[in-house]
Amino acid sequence: MATIKKKTGYFLEDFRPGQVFRHKGGKTLNEGLFNAFTDFSMTTNPLHKNAEYARFFGYKGLLAPPGLVMNIVFSQTVSDISENARANLEYINMRFGEPVYIGDTLEAETTILGIKSSSSKNDRGVVHVASVGRNQDGKVVIAFERKVQVWKNDVNAAVAEGELEGGVQVECTPVIPPYESIKEPAAKAYLSNNDTYFEDFRPGDVYEHSRGRLVTDEHIALTGQLDNTSQVHCNQFLIDQNPGKYIGGKLIVYGGVPFNLCLGISCPDVADNSPADVIYTSGKHVGPVFAGDTVFAATEIRDAREYPGRADLGLLVTTLRGHKFRAPKQDESGPQKADIFYLERELAVRRRSHYAS
Amino acid sequence: MATIKKKTGYFLEDFRPGQVFRHKGGKTLNEGLFNAFTDFSMTTNPLHKNAEYARFFGYKGLLAPPGLVMNIVFSQTVSDISENARANLEYINMRFGEPVYIGDTLEAETTILGIKSSSSKNDRGVVHVASVGRNQDGKVVIAFERKVQVWKNDVNAAVAEGELEGGVQVECTPVIPPYESIKEPAAKAYLSNNDTYFEDFRPGDVYEHSRGRLVTDEHIALTGQLDNTSQVHCNQFLIDQNPGKYIGGKLIVYGGVPFNLCLGISCPDVADNSPADVIYTSGKHVGPVFAGDTVFAATEIRDAREYPGRADLGLLVTTLRGHKFRAPKQDESGPQKADIFYLERELAVRRRSHYAS
Amino acid sequence: MATIKKKTGYFLEDFRPGQVFRHKGGKTLNEGLFNAFTDFSMTTNPLHKNAEYARFFGYKGLLAPPGLVMNIVFSQTVSDISENARANLEYINMRFGEPVYIGDTLEAETTILGIKSSSSKNDRGVVHVASVGRNQDGKVVIAFERKVQVWKNDVNAAVAEGELEGGVQVECTPVIPPYESIKEPAAKAYLSNNDTYFEDFRPGDVYEHSRGRLVTDEHIALTGQLDNTSQVHCNQFLIDQNPGKYIGGKLIVYGGVPFNLCLGISCPDVADNSPADVIYTSGKHVGPVFAGDTVFAATEIRDAREYPGRADLGLLVTTLRGHKFRAPKQDESGPQKADIFYLERELAVRRRSHYAS
Repeated sequence: MATIKKKTGYFLEDFRPGQVFRHKGGKTLNEGLFNAFTDFSMTTNPLHKNAEYARFFGYKGLLAPPGLVMNIVFSQTVSDISENARANLEYINMRFGEPVYIGDTLEAETTILGIKSSSSKNDRGVVHVASVGRNQDGKVVIAFERKVQVWKNDVNAAVAEGELEGGVQVECTPVIPPYESIKEPAAKAYLSNNDTYFEDFRPGDVYEHSRGRLVTDEHIALTGQLDNTSQVHCNQFLIDQNPGKYIGGKLIVYGGVPFNLCLGISCPDVADNSPADVIYTSGKHVGPVFAGDTVFAATEIRDAREYPGRADLGLLVTTLRGHKFRAPKQDESGPQKADIFYLERELAVRRRSHYAS
Repeated sequence: MATIKKKTGYFLEDFRPGQVFRHKGGKTLNEGLFNAFTDFSMTTNPLHKNAEYARFFGYKGLLAPPGLVMNIVFSQTVSDISENARANLEYINMRFGEPVYIGDTLEAETTILGIKSSSSKNDRGVVHVASVGRNQDGKVVIAFERKVQVWKNDVNAAVAEGELEGGVQVECTPVIPPYESIKEPAAKAYLSNNDTYFEDFRPGDVYEHSRGRLVTDEHIALTGQLDNTSQVHCNQFLIDQNPGKYIGGKLIVYGGVPFNLCLGISCPDVADNSPADVIYTSGKHVGPVFAGDTVFAATEIRDAREYPGRADLGLLVTTLRGHKFRAPKQDESGPQKADIFYLERELAVRRRSHYAS
Repeated sequence: MATIKKKTGYFLEDFRPGQVFRHKGGKTLNEGLFNAFTDFSMTTNPLHKNAEYARFFGYKGLLAPPGLVMNIVFSQTVSDISENARANLEYINMRFGEPVYIGDTLEAETTILGIKSSSSKNDRGVVHVASVGRNQDGKVVIAFERKVQVWKNDVNAAVAEGELEGGVQVECTPVIPPYESIKEPAAKAYLSNNDTYFEDFRPGDVYEHSRGRLVTDEHIALTGQLDNTSQVHCNQFLIDQNPGKYIGGKLIVYGGVPFNLCLGISCPDVADNSPADVIYTSGKHVGPVFAGDTVFAATEIRDAREYPGRADLGLLVTTLRGHKFRAPKQDESGPQKADIFYLERELAVRRRSHYAS
């Protein structure tokens, strides 16, 4: 007879370079989850809203937006990789592959690429991982690396510092239905914005997206629906017992929520005619979000390139930044803009020459 | 290189009589949206809850309630017509047509019927529009007019005042499966209230519906799920910067939410045996709703008529009124009843003689 | 011409032993409701999340968790049986039968087993009922008894005290796909926890489940989505008019919400490899839950038995307890643990010998 309180997740000293985790659960994307996240994001791209439109462009049905694909796969990695994390430091080379549809079941797998103890604090260190999400046919839907700062369970435990030689190489490029398969490519152009074709973008321009969205305590249910098990998003009592330990002394909004929301807020200006996000070379949560914050975003156009092998598309190289306004400090006159999110984002965009003439 | 902040939506001076908008997006009704709205409304009509029941009565599956059909189509018109509106003044002759099912994709189109500058204020005017929603087969599911007070972007701009001659004529009548197609019409009568058949209603009676429902900040997500893009429902920062400009100084609940809720609250008393709402000749939001308000409703029976061509049904002519209670002012002794919604509503109701004997 | 305010539901004096209610509405389980409840519960059992996994184990698709089945059927009984209840006293012999899938339509029926006036208060009494939920094929998915304390409408009315001789006998045992039908039973073992097989449990052990979950005012929408019509969960104005009459003077969370949540919180420790809950011999809400409470749970293993006719499974006999922490009273030093839920729960659990070797 015993009282058992299981530790959940792994700690810094539990990881080894080259270690592979096949994550638990798996997740079938149903219409409830799709509805909650697609629409929470304020995305305006009809591929995520209008099944007739999606089929017209060669997809099997409503297309899951990239923020939802990321959230489903990322969340499956949390209980093994980051349930005991202090902070998620960086997303690296997040790439999208096979389209994800309602009814698809996604599973996730993570390889430990590197482990490094903190040089200044003996209770933590950084784990560098590569994760991949696959659908029920084994096709890759997303692949990404991330660096996460993880607590040690025992500060005296040895840490298996090191790096996996060669890393992990996974092929992952957006599967976009061929232009030739689309009959009358301009016939549905009235359903999306007419000023967001590839020809409309100029490097150096910055779009300050006009819409903002209040995040309420709905973030708890959204996070739960993703099976993200981290307690700092939903266990109020835990926070209240020791508020000083937690950022802001409050439940913190899971990063995937503003990640998804910033993508959506940017949509009417940059992604309304985008068939796919291609790669996020680097992404960071540069400030916390709490219930009560209104989230805004801006996109800087950094480059506009040919899309390899597709004359009908271009590749837009952007930086997406999210911000909120924090309460003023004593000597400040009003709410201050505070950055919350940074994402180097490349996306495929249709050319007007092919889709709106 | 430029900083771009797009204006979204049109202003009073942008409209012309006869102008036609094919609205962006379109919307596929999925089970997530259906669940959120059908059940939010507190409707008790089994056509919206029990697929076996709906098929028994000749429908292809669960039937979308009228408040949901209205909300999906109306919301698509917002970004073009009323993103820059000060107030939605009136719904006129809102009529229902083809049944709407889960999986249907609805698109919306609006014609400008008339434009009139305000005689007293030079920064605004009234736009009178006709909107129609169609499903993926091009069949009309809803048609309605509305009058909306819209801001000018430039107070000095010329306004194209005038009216479209002849208006817009759209055929739109409920498609109700024929009585003859229903085997044993009384076999499922136990699933709905037995005192809401056509024979039970007397002109002059007023039903004070017994249930009320608190509206929480869930209204933000509900509105987002409809793709309603108006910022006064979800951008807290915008409101906080200038509360005096906004009604109540708070995020206002999108009118479609109490519209849908009042219909649902009335259901156990008047619509539990109704196969369809037919027409709302006039509707108005006569007072604002905010998070924290509890919504109630009452229905006045104004007339009970033959239903053209259907001996098994009657036509109930009603007025549906919604109310809440506002905090008392200095010299008032307690919360005061405040009207929020007014709807002249005609609905088809089954006759007991045909369905419960 | 009259003003009509209908009484909803029945009062103590309206019930008769042997009376049978076929409840109104019925409910088709759609993906929106499934998503909201499955994930709200924090369950980790892949049968409820991963359709490929569920099919692998012989189910037709995603399996509804027991807390959701209970909630759908229970809620249908509320408007007839407990809309005018003061308290739900006890669940008795709640048993599970046929698996419930998305798309199934459940209807509910209740028989009055016994009625007893309160000996000390003349305005109330206890009704003992047996309810059964069936799917569209007439197969029993759940059967249970409960005792509920119900108000009288007229304190002077006669009460039909008595008991139904013989009670109600309904066959209801979990339908679990046969072991022989599963190819490579260990092939999907990586998707569930590896320390929750039958061999891992020892009578006397107590698991203090590590996760907790804040309940927000989302409970109102969750309850509405179940068609639970009781006003004490959603009518804030009703409470505010007479707070002293209601427990805590606040909207109380519908018991099915913590019921479902406690089951889910326990899942990673005891039910991750469970194909079915078998019976809840007794269950009680021993304390109220309000928005703002963080819910926790613990499971005591009381016995571990053979599962009749199944060598691949065992029967785990447990007690599941839910708790929260209430604010301290004057002489208390901090938040105090407060029990909220008690459930004697027997569940089928896979044996490692058959599923993970």
